[in-house]
Amino acid sequence: MQEEKMVSVIGIGPGGKQWLTQEAEEAIRRSDLVVGYTVYVELVRAYFPEKEYLTTPMKQEAKRCEMALAEANEGKQVAMVCSGDAGVYGMAGLMLELGTSYPNVEIRICPGITAALAGGAVLGAPLTHDFAVISLSDLLTPKEKIEKRLKAAAMADFVICLYNPSSKKRKDYLAWACGCMMEYKKKETVCGIVRNIGREGQESKILTLEELQHTQVDMFSTVFVGNEETREIDGKMVTPRGYRNV
Amino acid sequence: MQEEKMVSVIGIGPGGKQWLTQEAEEAIRRSDLVVGYTVYVELVRAYFPEKEYLTTPMKQEAKRCEMALAEANEGKQVAMVCSGDAGVYGMAGLMLELGTSYPNVEIRICPGITAALAGGAVLGAPLTHDFAVISLSDLLTPKEKIEKRLKAAAMADFVICLYNPSSKKRKDYLAWACGCMMEYKKKETVCGIVRNIGREGQESKILTLEELQHTQVDMFSTVFVGNEETREIDGKMVTPRGYRNV
Repeated sequence: MQEEKMVSVIGIGPGGKQWLTQEAEEAIRRSDLVVGYTVYVELVRAYFPEKEYLTTPMKQEAKRCEMALAEANEGKQVAMVCSGDAGVYGMAGLMLELGTSYPNVEIRICPGITAALAGGAVLGAPLTHDFAVISLSDLLTPKEKIEKRLKAAAMADFVICLYNPSSKKRKDYLAWACGCMMEYKKKETVCGIVRNIGREGQESKILTLEELQHTQVDMFSTVFVGNEETREIDGKMVTPRGYRNV
Repeated sequence: MQEEKMVSVIGIGPGGKQWLTQEAEEAIRRSDLVVGYTVYVELVRAYFPEKEYLTTPMKQEAKRCEMALAEANEGKQVAMVCSGDAGVYGMAGLMLELGTSYPNVEIRICPGITAALAGGAVLGAPLTHDFAVISLSDLLTPKEKIEKRLKAAAMADFVICLYNPSSKKRKDYLAWACGCMMEYKKKETVCGIVRNIGREGQESKILTLEELQHTQVDMFSTVFVGNEETREIDGKMVTPRGYRNV
């Protein structure tokens, strides 16, 4: 009987092993080959040094997926690792698209702790109520669409979690996004920044939306913007859900 | 030296041990007492039968938190368990609020795989792009606010993940929500339902928004509504991000 050909697309969480799920760990252990973007592969290699590794740099996502599928098609058990969750701005979608050319290869998606959850835990409990996750990267999304989403989410009083808030070419995007949200959210809205979530050098800060607008963050940061009820309680960012009044 | 007094508020994921993080498992192992809502405590008890357990029924959230804090203040290491993530509609916020009365008790938040991530992995990759998470429960939120959020998220073409899509008293809410979203989203929009995520009896289904409007779901279900680009590929719900065209 032929062994099943499989690629597991694995969300490894923000980096530290503490947030790896048991499923993710087992899938990596069982694999012959670990494929991924250089930075994440190095995180995994630290915990599983005995594996075979294959890396591609950023912006070669399709090539990376093709490599993973081709190796699985040749009979290797392949683990494709993504930071955070495999689906949230991750590789799961592209793998399923490209996988149609490899009908014998099963693609299994293993979820992981995305930055919204891990960063939320560091800050306190910002996501207790309805929230929206928006990436400020306009590499694959028109800026007009990002603007529309920022304003709609702010208008409907969602807690908003911003991924990719900054990059070398987009240093002013966070300030711009704060301006969009301030059309509907008060400038006193409680916000938070978490940098290097779950990794060495983890930092976090709570500040107002107006202060956030004048703050520089880097590409290793995740930004949280509260709703009308979000408060700072003992240094933590907390969005109440109303349980207390029930 | 006095030992540190601590409550860990732990997201255990949707139920199966495969999606427990290493941090969550260690925190439960280290604890003297596990506190939670009856259903989730039973899930944890299956894996850690030797622990002491304390349960309260639903709608007694504040009491449950007070119990956990009081026990920690007496010197017990307490694990408060929540399904999914500890913050997303979870107990983390209330614990931080009530914790101000127990200044000697440290509250640590341990994130977990929330239903949006786990259900997304079951369906394929619906959350590859910006998304909004909305609860249809109006127990703690005015229905007008839910409506505003549904329409704003649909108008800005977010992928939408619906928590608590149904209950005995709210059998018609999903149909109502679909109607709200159809003011902006096409009736052909690709949607998905996952039931009993990661547990015995897991089921999933992909259907159009119009079909979803005429479908009954129960309280163990999580619902996904795609954006303009979401497609069904080989039986999976996939939202492309555009990587393929780079």
